[in-house]
Amino acid sequence: MNLELAAIRALDRSDILAPLRDRFDLPPGVIYLDGNSLGALPRQTAARVADVVKSEWGSGLIRSWNTADWIGAPARVGAKIARIVGAMPHEVIVADSTSVNLFKLLMAGLADRPGRHVILSETGNFPTDLYVAQGVGQLMPGVEIRIVSRDTIEDAIDETVAVLMLTHVHYKSGARFDMPALTRAAHAKGALVLWDLSHSVGAVPLDLNGAKADLAIGCGYKYLNGGPGAPSFLFVAEPHQARLQSPLSGWMGHAKPFAFHEAYRPADGMQRFLCGTPPILALAALESGVDLFLEADMVAIVAKSQALCGLMIELVEERCSGLGLSLATPIDPDRRGSHVSFRHEHGYAIMQALIARGVIGDFRDPDILRFGLTPLYLRYEDIWNAVGCLRDILSEDAFRDPKYALRSVVT
Amino acid sequence: MNLELAAIRALDRSDILAPLRDRFDLPPGVIYLDGNSLGALPRQTAARVADVVKSEWGSGLIRSWNTADWIGAPARVGAKIARIVGAMPHEVIVADSTSVNLFKLLMAGLADRPGRHVILSETGNFPTDLYVAQGVGQLMPGVEIRIVSRDTIEDAIDETVAVLMLTHVHYKSGARFDMPALTRAAHAKGALVLWDLSHSVGAVPLDLNGAKADLAIGCGYKYLNGGPGAPSFLFVAEPHQARLQSPLSGWMGHAKPFAFHEAYRPADGMQRFLCGTPPILALAALESGVDLFLEADMVAIVAKSQALCGLMIELVEERCSGLGLSLATPIDPDRRGSHVSFRHEHGYAIMQALIARGVIGDFRDPDILRFGLTPLYLRYEDIWNAVGCLRDILSEDAFRDPKYALRSVVT
Repeated sequence: MNLELAAIRALDRSDILAPLRDRFDLPPGVIYLDGNSLGALPRQTAARVADVVKSEWGSGLIRSWNTADWIGAPARVGAKIARIVGAMPHEVIVADSTSVNLFKLLMAGLADRPGRHVILSETGNFPTDLYVAQGVGQLMPGVEIRIVSRDTIEDAIDETVAVLMLTHVHYKSGARFDMPALTRAAHAKGALVLWDLSHSVGAVPLDLNGAKADLAIGCGYKYLNGGPGAPSFLFVAEPHQARLQSPLSGWMGHAKPFAFHEAYRPADGMQRFLCGTPPILALAALESGVDLFLEADMVAIVAKSQALCGLMIELVEERCSGLGLSLATPIDPDRRGSHVSFRHEHGYAIMQALIARGVIGDFRDPDILRFGLTPLYLRYEDIWNAVGCLRDILSEDAFRDPKYALRSVVT
Repeated sequence: MNLELAAIRALDRSDILAPLRDRFDLPPGVIYLDGNSLGALPRQTAARVADVVKSEWGSGLIRSWNTADWIGAPARVGAKIARIVGAMPHEVIVADSTSVNLFKLLMAGLADRPGRHVILSETGNFPTDLYVAQGVGQLMPGVEIRIVSRDTIEDAIDETVAVLMLTHVHYKSGARFDMPALTRAAHAKGALVLWDLSHSVGAVPLDLNGAKADLAIGCGYKYLNGGPGAPSFLFVAEPHQARLQSPLSGWMGHAKPFAFHEAYRPADGMQRFLCGTPPILALAALESGVDLFLEADMVAIVAKSQALCGLMIELVEERCSGLGLSLATPIDPDRRGSHVSFRHEHGYAIMQALIARGVIGDFRDPDILRFGLTPLYLRYEDIWNAVGCLRDILSEDAFRDPKYALRSVVT
């Protein structure tokens, strides 16, 4: 054990979030650096889901819509997420997937800005965001999807822009936008801003109301640890709620869903952004993840996220220098999220070699090694060990083994 | 015990589906006649969901997208449902909610019939179907939602109709449409037919290919016992698949979702009707319900469904005559689904009194008592006992207790 490791262990000993690690069910022999893709399993979630299955569904049956308040779950879980994103409880609701929610809010935003025909976004934004926008463009004659490079976004906002659609933390580089500044710039030209918080929520400071944000969507299965394919959430600032309407007008968005009237009348508030029957098992898992999250102090979470990322950048610089890695993530902690990315021409094979040794990150084309550093369940020592493993693989050329070149379906 | 009950018990003794009842986790003291609203819990589902949570999510983490074939789940479960609805395995996929899937197929169907501007449906169709169609109408200038009474549908199909949207089994009355005949009538005028199978699938004979059906959607949480808010399925007949495109163009519908290309290119086949990341826990519960379903013989399921409904109609006629009930469901077993409905001016209070005594059905405005009779876990004797309870409540005026007048959120 050298001095550096001793210092790193001291960080773990003084980490006030350290006890939370035991609240997760992590497999032995694994350093999990992919919580930005799929969060780990909170221990309490297995029991919570089992209870919903056996007691609420099995014994309560249809009665649980009332007695277990299934009907209130989308708003209840939304109100909890509101605390994490800096919104009022009645400004967030849980429903559908991020892609579907993005469609709802893009369509609602366009309708709210008549005479404007542009959805403005960033080249290299997360593909599903661009795909959904393209679908909206195909649907609505005259709507243009304008994609510009990151550094020219502010200049590209003009009076034709209805909605500026941005992902707050970039899925590859981890670069984080200045939410208040861009929101101000959009408002100055009369545009709405729609923030995709998928790679932010639960890892970076968020204050939607403070930034005067209009619209947002976010993912439940990354830093919120809501389980694979967990439902998504959406935010509409209170002043916009009465004006905006979802194009997906299903019964759960009706003012009186159980009156079974023939004419659609949207509910007041966020309820109108619901569509079909909510997936109760998935909602329960998400709520359990959010509940655990809310036990921790957000300031401590953010500080540890920044410290973990800073440590990884520093250790790679020191211990992997000359081995072909280049940092793809901003150095400034206020300009990045909670994952760190490095470029390497053999990125895919290197990641496979890491995974084979129990260090799980992921790879993004063409050359990005991505490491999600989640403050709730990672130790500083995990970063030390992961970087050591990375250094070994690079210095031993272990990644050149042909078996690491085989592509899986999901990368 | 009188003779009639003896005869009914003999039916149970000779019921080849009787052993399946033990495969469900039914609460004691309850006769559950609401499986058309939320199916009961298959015993194997609790273990299956627990395994997905603990082993696939907890231990496998992100790797389970490949190793547990999460990525293949929507098509895999769809192929299983295809066997129940009379479709080819590659014609069905599981995704989103019924309302969202309805939106996709209505929009795709309209785009496929240029020059036609009408969505034709039935007065009194399930509200979410009408609501979603109204949403489509608001979105697409010139599109008209034409609603006609059940007996005039065939006459109302003309060259302006793009999509005939019908619910195969009516949610209130249980009346079942003649799918081949209506599909033929629509095709004769060049219209597509979109069948909502929510109240049919798993209870009545379905042969989508035999009927030359174009499009269909259906619910996973009723007779398929997939759990509260289970994902929905959608069907597009093979000849239409290459022409039709989903307006919800999320990444899971992309030809190469993990290539992260910027331009949307729809996948071949049903994959293009996926949108966001699928909810894996909910999919696992649905698959478990479908697996159990597939163990039984569909001919026996249909025969028992018809026999249970026939028995209930007969017993109510005999034992509740003069007590104010009138049958709202067709007598002909080939013209109805697997639920039986009766009208009564005090329907709501009567249903509350029944539920208080452990007989769980549901109520639909303004006066419908609805009883879902599910062949997999109900006994003939349950019908006898339920009707006895109904008779007692009516003849004792027990439903007049003021406590039964209080409305719950979800009816």
